[in-house]
Amino acid sequence: MSPIDYTHILTKAVDELSDSQSYRGLFHQHREGEPLPSGKSLERIVELSRAILFPGYFGNSTINSQTINYHIGVNIEELFSLLIEQIQAGLCFGVENSGQCDCQSPCRATATQLAAEFISRLPEIRRILATDVEAAYYGDPAATCFGEIICCYPVIRAVTNYRIAHELHRLNVPLIPRIITEMAHSETGIDIHPGAQIGHHFTIDHGTGVVIGATCIIGNHVKLYQGVTLGAKSFPCDEQGNPIKGIPRHPILEDNVIVYSNATILGRITIGEGATIGGNIWVTESVPTGARIVQRKSKEN
Amino acid sequence: MSPIDYTHILTKAVDELSDSQSYRGLFHQHREGEPLPSGKSLERIVELSRAILFPGYFGNSTINSQTINYHIGVNIEELFSLLIEQIQAGLCFGVENSGQCDCQSPCRATATQLAAEFISRLPEIRRILATDVEAAYYGDPAATCFGEIICCYPVIRAVTNYRIAHELHRLNVPLIPRIITEMAHSETGIDIHPGAQIGHHFTIDHGTGVVIGATCIIGNHVKLYQGVTLGAKSFPCDEQGNPIKGIPRHPILEDNVIVYSNATILGRITIGEGATIGGNIWVTESVPTGARIVQRKSKEN
Amino acid sequence: MSPIDYTHILTKAVDELSDSQSYRGLFHQHREGEPLPSGKSLERIVELSRAILFPGYFGNSTINSQTINYHIGVNIEELFSLLIEQIQAGLCFGVENSGQCDCQSPCRATATQLAAEFISRLPEIRRILATDVEAAYYGDPAATCFGEIICCYPVIRAVTNYRIAHELHRLNVPLIPRIITEMAHSETGIDIHPGAQIGHHFTIDHGTGVVIGATCIIGNHVKLYQGVTLGAKSFPCDEQGNPIKGIPRHPILEDNVIVYSNATILGRITIGEGATIGGNIWVTESVPTGARIVQRKSKEN
Amino acid sequence: MSPIDYTHILTKAVDELSDSQSYRGLFHQHREGEPLPSGKSLERIVELSRAILFPGYFGNSTINSQTINYHIGVNIEELFSLLIEQIQAGLCFGVENSGQCDCQSPCRATATQLAAEFISRLPEIRRILATDVEAAYYGDPAATCFGEIICCYPVIRAVTNYRIAHELHRLNVPLIPRIITEMAHSETGIDIHPGAQIGHHFTIDHGTGVVIGATCIIGNHVKLYQGVTLGAKSFPCDEQGNPIKGIPRHPILEDNVIVYSNATILGRITIGEGATIGGNIWVTESVPTGARIVQRKSKEN
Amino acid sequence: MSPIDYTHILTKAVDELSDSQSYRGLFHQHREGEPLPSGKSLERIVELSRAILFPGYFGNSTINSQTINYHIGVNIEELFSLLIEQIQAGLCFGVENSGQCDCQSPCRATATQLAAEFISRLPEIRRILATDVEAAYYGDPAATCFGEIICCYPVIRAVTNYRIAHELHRLNVPLIPRIITEMAHSETGIDIHPGAQIGHHFTIDHGTGVVIGATCIIGNHVKLYQGVTLGAKSFPCDEQGNPIKGIPRHPILEDNVIVYSNATILGRITIGEGATIGGNIWVTESVPTGARIVQRKSKEN
Amino acid sequence: MSPIDYTHILTKAVDELSDSQSYRGLFHQHREGEPLPSGKSLERIVELSRAILFPGYFGNSTINSQTINYHIGVNIEELFSLLIEQIQAGLCFGVENSGQCDCQSPCRATATQLAAEFISRLPEIRRILATDVEAAYYGDPAATCFGEIICCYPVIRAVTNYRIAHELHRLNVPLIPRIITEMAHSETGIDIHPGAQIGHHFTIDHGTGVVIGATCIIGNHVKLYQGVTLGAKSFPCDEQGNPIKGIPRHPILEDNVIVYSNATILGRITIGEGATIGGNIWVTESVPTGARIVQRKSKEN
Repeated sequence: MSPIDYTHILTKAVDELSDSQSYRGLFHQHREGEPLPSGKSLERIVELSRAILFPGYFGNSTINSQTINYHIGVNIEELFSLLIEQIQAGLCFGVENSGQCDCQSPCRATATQLAAEFISRLPEIRRILATDVEAAYYGDPAATCFGEIICCYPVIRAVTNYRIAHELHRLNVPLIPRIITEMAHSETGIDIHPGAQIGHHFTIDHGTGVVIGATCIIGNHVKLYQGVTLGAKSFPCDEQGNPIKGIPRHPILEDNVIVYSNATILGRITIGEGATIGGNIWVTESVPTGARIVQRKSKEN
Repeated sequence: MSPIDYTHILTKAVDELSDSQSYRGLFHQHREGEPLPSGKSLERIVELSRAILFPGYFGNSTINSQTINYHIGVNIEELFSLLIEQIQAGLCFGVENSGQCDCQSPCRATATQLAAEFISRLPEIRRILATDVEAAYYGDPAATCFGEIICCYPVIRAVTNYRIAHELHRLNVPLIPRIITEMAHSETGIDIHPGAQIGHHFTIDHGTGVVIGATCIIGNHVKLYQGVTLGAKSFPCDEQGNPIKGIPRHPILEDNVIVYSNATILGRITIGEGATIGGNIWVTESVPTGARIVQRKSKEN
Repeated sequence: MSPIDYTHILTKAVDELSDSQSYRGLFHQHREGEPLPSGKSLERIVELSRAILFPGYFGNSTINSQTINYHIGVNIEELFSLLIEQIQAGLCFGVENSGQCDCQSPCRATATQLAAEFISRLPEIRRILATDVEAAYYGDPAATCFGEIICCYPVIRAVTNYRIAHELHRLNVPLIPRIITEMAHSETGIDIHPGAQIGHHFTIDHGTGVVIGATCIIGNHVKLYQGVTLGAKSFPCDEQGNPIKGIPRHPILEDNVIVYSNATILGRITIGEGATIGGNIWVTESVPTGARIVQRKSKEN
Repeated sequence: MSPIDYTHILTKAVDELSDSQSYRGLFHQHREGEPLPSGKSLERIVELSRAILFPGYFGNSTINSQTINYHIGVNIEELFSLLIEQIQAGLCFGVENSGQCDCQSPCRATATQLAAEFISRLPEIRRILATDVEAAYYGDPAATCFGEIICCYPVIRAVTNYRIAHELHRLNVPLIPRIITEMAHSETGIDIHPGAQIGHHFTIDHGTGVVIGATCIIGNHVKLYQGVTLGAKSFPCDEQGNPIKGIPRHPILEDNVIVYSNATILGRITIGEGATIGGNIWVTESVPTGARIVQRKSKEN
Repeated sequence: MSPIDYTHILTKAVDELSDSQSYRGLFHQHREGEPLPSGKSLERIVELSRAILFPGYFGNSTINSQTINYHIGVNIEELFSLLIEQIQAGLCFGVENSGQCDCQSPCRATATQLAAEFISRLPEIRRILATDVEAAYYGDPAATCFGEIICCYPVIRAVTNYRIAHELHRLNVPLIPRIITEMAHSETGIDIHPGAQIGHHFTIDHGTGVVIGATCIIGNHVKLYQGVTLGAKSFPCDEQGNPIKGIPRHPILEDNVIVYSNATILGRITIGEGATIGGNIWVTESVPTGARIVQRKSKEN
Repeated sequence: MSPIDYTHILTKAVDELSDSQSYRGLFHQHREGEPLPSGKSLERIVELSRAILFPGYFGNSTINSQTINYHIGVNIEELFSLLIEQIQAGLCFGVENSGQCDCQSPCRATATQLAAEFISRLPEIRRILATDVEAAYYGDPAATCFGEIICCYPVIRAVTNYRIAHELHRLNVPLIPRIITEMAHSETGIDIHPGAQIGHHFTIDHGTGVVIGATCIIGNHVKLYQGVTLGAKSFPCDEQGNPIKGIPRHPILEDNVIVYSNATILGRITIGEGATIGGNIWVTESVPTGARIVQRKSKEN
């Protein structure tokens, strides 16, 4: 084929792909002046949050105790400014999605207020993350010190993203919390929905393949291993066949529960306080306090 | 040790590692002027494809319906040019590998033709991806809108890479398709071989740990959960003990099959239409239409 | 709220987060002049090592057999210099952690010596990695050539990082080896502790979700599939309730063992030579030579 | 000195430099939400303008005549969006500077209108730049083709920036035009004030050191050499000793004037049509039509 | 104006600017597969050349005498590869420009040969640059050592670019040499045409504003100061009014000439051996051996 | 020529260029562990200094008066750390150059002390730069406000670099000050030697081509125009023909002197208080207080 034929093929593809029939439902129409959810900004938001919460471990590592407030100050200011933009992007996305939108400036004011609210909760987020670091340390004989946990353990990255995203979720910010937890999912293989509620001293060992659903409720001092699913069993649909949103459909894990690797716990059941769930099993019914559930013996073949 | 000793250690290591005995089988000898498979170019190819297929969600997000054709046009032109280079790199790699190579310019001409062919299939790729987005939306009560699916759900990234790679695989391009699906594997934990055949309205929930083998055939409206393996049970070797290539050895899933988390389905068996496979089980025999297979009850210990 | 109120919220958060009570245990205090563990440097260290070990596949791909020593030479020199810095950072981190530190220059001298020692072991690392490439090739009918294995297969990246990290671990470098294996964990979903001992001709198919614990001993010609856990069953604590470090607590796999997907093998048990462990099962007792262990039949429901 | 002393020195310097007395007049106080003049955005604006005006020479060079409109389209859209932001930044800067500011949204609307107005003038800017390219080509025996002029000759970069900046200046945008011409000044050594008026077929040979003042009026077919100054002789001050702004104080050069290297022409004088000014001389009085002015003979010493 | 009006303005501008009438002479039509002159590649070419010629001063500075050949080797290989591409781009540009072009592969072969030829001249280029460094050092009392000259003095950058470009010019490579000298012009304010012939021990003090024309011939041990012009006085045109190319029209400076700042020497005249030209004067007639020419005394006013 | 021939040419060039005879005087041998003068670090040092001295104009522009100390604090800490490294690099370079070197740690301690000393002088540097901004503003009718001066005027960049470099020069740091002023030279065309002494309220209009020599002494309220040279007339050599270093050889300009464009003032002469030097003239003798010197009238030709 001659170059002219190739040009013809390309321009034909351009025309087809620019046809509004072709991109229906797959196209995000942008209104001038509106901020956009930005993966790059959100990555920076996560970086800044990690640098603020674990000073010296993430971000500029040369800080010392005399100059720490300069660093925290600069990071919080940048975080505030990026959050305003991304929260506004989330709000616009949400409004647009619901089909009722004539805001613009109100959105900006709301976003600013929510960003400030989020900033004011950072000390509390640090307080609970400190308990998660402890739990990881005391739960792993291979760990040599808190610093190793913070630097290397994927659970810290996943749970930090989750705790940040969960606060934004509580402030009713659409879309943004989910993108933040999916960033940790991609980085660590741990998929925690921002809607889940998780107590203090929470840890996950290794972590790849863990799934924690949107309506999970997890108590304090809970430990999961890699590959654990806390999922939904099935979900009711409305008359049009659409899944009904917002119904509790994921498990409740009470305090001090341990779930071993690759176990699957499905549905709105309760795993009682102190219970232990063995690896590679499928649990769809509630488990009483203190119980131990394991796989039936495998056989030699 | 003095600096001179260290220099000696370094130059000794250089000599050993530059010895042709040492790098046999691990060295890719480059012929001047030939393009190379490039991770960076392939990442850009995936970015461009996503930006073309889901305009406004990936790539330059400020586009609107009046100017969409400028963006699609520029992206397709860049995509075409990068594809020619990478397809040629794949062809050279393949030829070299088979030990019979005296092409060069023919390679470039062939690569150009294949790249144009690929471009012309993009509208069809978008059409089927639209059904995958729908399937993900209707299959997850936590999803609030199509936009959230496209922005956040790892399945969309994995399946987009797969559908792109599968077209290149159908065009007999060596190596490149596999690199593209491995990029999605690293990003999402979902490992789909470009050779697999997958129908429309396909979705995977959460996805980490999913494996779909090279000779799988998957019908329409199939849904998988995280950790599902569609693998080979064993494989025959030839007289030299090398595995025989190209024999169908992975499962067939008919329409409307659901496979729950961490299930393992192995071998050239058929899971019949509408069947449901429970989580954490190992299936090595065919399953009839409409059947439900689950794990034996676990026991309290 | 007016801008002034927001400034007040921000500065209040800065003050709280800069308070030494708030960051206890989460703060890494830096001493002037000391190098820091750097994710970016360690990524470069891994890149350089891959480029040296698999010339032409990673790093500058245009090398040929006449000029290979220039490339290896430049890469080894940069590697040496980065390793000195990162090993010193690891040593300082370790010393600090143990609370006894007045070194500085001794650290630098030790780091230089260890880096040179590491460099001198690179030819041996390449030799064993060549067997891993072979094992991957002969174990997968979908593989078309060695080059495809090296370019695309996640196992190569994970095992390369592990073999590098294991050498640094043997040289008693703190922290750094673990960061290197976690980088591969994030990239491939394969989590191998640098302390594990692994023989030649080792391979992992697909790999996502694999966990290999710190005290594992793995023979030659062993093959794992995705989702396999080689973990600890439980661990004794000392009188203060801290887990006791350094006790062998992970499995021993003898030569020629195969473990299928999602199997979980826990505790200091031995899987005898040539044994096969089926998928999705939980093994906590030793398995004799040549045995085949599979899941109990699942049932239709 | 001990580390503690150094910390003291640093924090003392921080305090002094953060004292409002210290930074009076040197500090740009930022109001939240307002865009800022950004060197990086303005560099991109210049890049985009050059790519639009000289397609294939600047920017993406792989365009051809079939696909040129895609490229121009995408570039104009990005240019429009960046211009809105930077024009708004200029307007805010100007208002702030005059001490009367309660705008915000009006600024944005005005900026959008001015940016659109600027875009609509681009075809005219290209038309006149085409004459400048011609003038450079016919004026230099060393030039081999138009393409060489556009690629290499600093005059094209300087005059393009000037013609862009001059249009923004005519639209009364503060600050931004000056930054744009200073960018060319740094790149080429040619300093043209955006307020100057310059006819078509204008060229400057070599160019380093050329200065063209704010109230210059230059006719058509004028040629300058390196080091030429068209400056002000002196300027009247008001009662407070401040220079009075806006008085014509730079030369008028009529059509077809040539000024040789390092000549200095000062004050509101007129160089008549077709006059030639020799190099290294100082001219402070008007020169009649067609005259040739040269330096007095130098002497041997 | 509403958004729709703005879209109309933008698309109208796109249409006008994509009209072939509008871009005639200003558009570089690209043929698929052909390399393009690339500012970025040429910057890298200059960087590599400087690193090769002055090892340890430019480029990777950590080299020592044991490992220098690794660095030179890697740099030369990259330089060779980039030169082939850029020389080919220059050849295509030249051919296209002359309107007679049906080459393609011949171009590539020629480019490779010329690049190899250039590489083989690098030792000679270094030899002469060593004399320029000496001349700069012995000519400036402010210089403290050779290293300071190489690191800081703009003349070294300008003359290095010139000597590289001059070799490419001698090999009849179109366009590329000129871009290389213009890069130094922008960086240093020194504008040397690649066609000029310059002897050894050449230096320029400060340098901003120096211009050396295409047909200049400069002997050995010549020193110029800032602002010196060695230009053409006028040039004959052919019957169509186009300047006639290739006629000698710039000065000849014999050995040991010194020209002080801002002097302008024009036309094909000869400045005799050992002559001194004073600052700020205009010289258009030959100057005898050993003469000293200065400005007429200025007067008090 | 075949590829093998090219390889031969390349390796021959590598050998010649790696020969120690070839690079004598042009090679900077690096000692392991020593910092190197780094253009990139020095650019960052200049950026940070500008951001500290003119907050909100350079660097992070979103600062306001409540949060300014966070930004100044973080910038000063980074500046301190980079300065230590670069000052040490300068000290090592100087020692090496003088041929007497067995320092290492003393160097680091000295560098730290000098860096702290420099930091403590920043408030004074800002105080004097504020007078330079004023002088530029009151000296140019085209300037609309202080902000425009700081943002756009090249003199501010050149004089800031000079005042920084001059302090380092006073602290006897070798090499580094000169690199810093040459960076401004390249950016603005203004070449000020760090050794020059310059009073307050100093300004340069336009600036391209200005040269201020190492032993100049310039009073307060002095104004220069573009192209002005304050240079040396000639310099005595010692018995070996080397220029004698450190002899005063550049002009003294007393308070309130104005020098117009392209004037050249040479030698250790004194331009008396309030004198005015016209453009394009060459001055080699002292000028009395209040005098006005201009070029002899040019003539019509």
